[in-house]
Amino acid sequence: MATFRFGQHIVKSSAVFLKTELSFALVNRKPVVPGHVLVCPLRVVERFRDLRPDEVADLFMTTQRIADVIEKHFQASSLTIAIQVYKFIAYTHVHVHVLPRKAGDFDKNDSIYDELQKHDRENEDVPSKWRSEEEMAKEATELHSLFN
Amino acid sequence: MATFRFGQHIVKSSAVFLKTELSFALVNRKPVVPGHVLVCPLRVVERFRDLRPDEVADLFMTTQRIADVIEKHFQASSLTIAIQVYKFIAYTHVHVHVLPRKAGDFDKNDSIYDELQKHDRENEDVPSKWRSEEEMAKEATELHSLFN
Repeated sequence: MATFRFGQHIVKSSAVFLKTELSFALVNRKPVVPGHVLVCPLRVVERFRDLRPDEVADLFMTTQRIADVIEKHFQASSLTIAIQVYKFIAYTHVHVHVLPRKAGDFDKNDSIYDELQKHDRENEDVPSKWRSEEEMAKEATELHSLFN
Repeated sequence: MATFRFGQHIVKSSAVFLKTELSFALVNRKPVVPGHVLVCPLRVVERFRDLRPDEVADLFMTTQRIADVIEKHFQASSLTIAIQVYKFIAYTHVHVHVLPRKAGDFDKNDSIYDELQKHDRENEDVPSKWRSEEEMAKEATELHSLFN
């Protein structure tokens, strides 16, 4: 079974729904909205500037492919795609957030930016708030099937 | 003199500080933070999914190059890179926001996401809030010199 790394962490392959030559995509432990997924380089790289050109190309061509599938599957009205959304970030592993957006998914005072900040803090610190491995594996299998 | 288009709009070449084979980068009429710039495909494309693979690769390799220069030049502590940050967007022209981040540049209740929403609305609707062409040309010249 393939092994995936997110910085110092091992990612269970059951959470990974797509792998390309240089990138992989995984479902979220604590999605900010349904369908919020992450796209990462296979190589462990802390910062965007450290990616090689072929890794940048593969990462965003993969992101484009995933964004299109996610938008349709979650019947979104638009998408947000973002990297390095933090003011002060403990760099771990480059990742691109892909979020399908719908009417009313955030109020003005509860913005996606704040939610993404909370998201990564909670992913680091509060395992009790994570989804179960089974739930994540189920979603990953469902998403994987959309790429075949 | 080269002509650049942003959807239906003509971009003055004096605001453009970098051009590659398939992309160009311009300074902002109303930057959300100092050093907030935009990277776009040369071809007029409304949505991310409509870009060809070579355009995606060039767009993000160019974004990476620009982000590195912008981060150093504006002495930022981190970067935000985002596309399609809106819930309901009037699609015009694909563009990648690059924002250098510093301590205290946004309060919790005045997040970058809200600022980016306001940013594009004001760019569309309130020309009196734009910077002068001279100010923009000065910054573009300064940034251009960093790529030589």
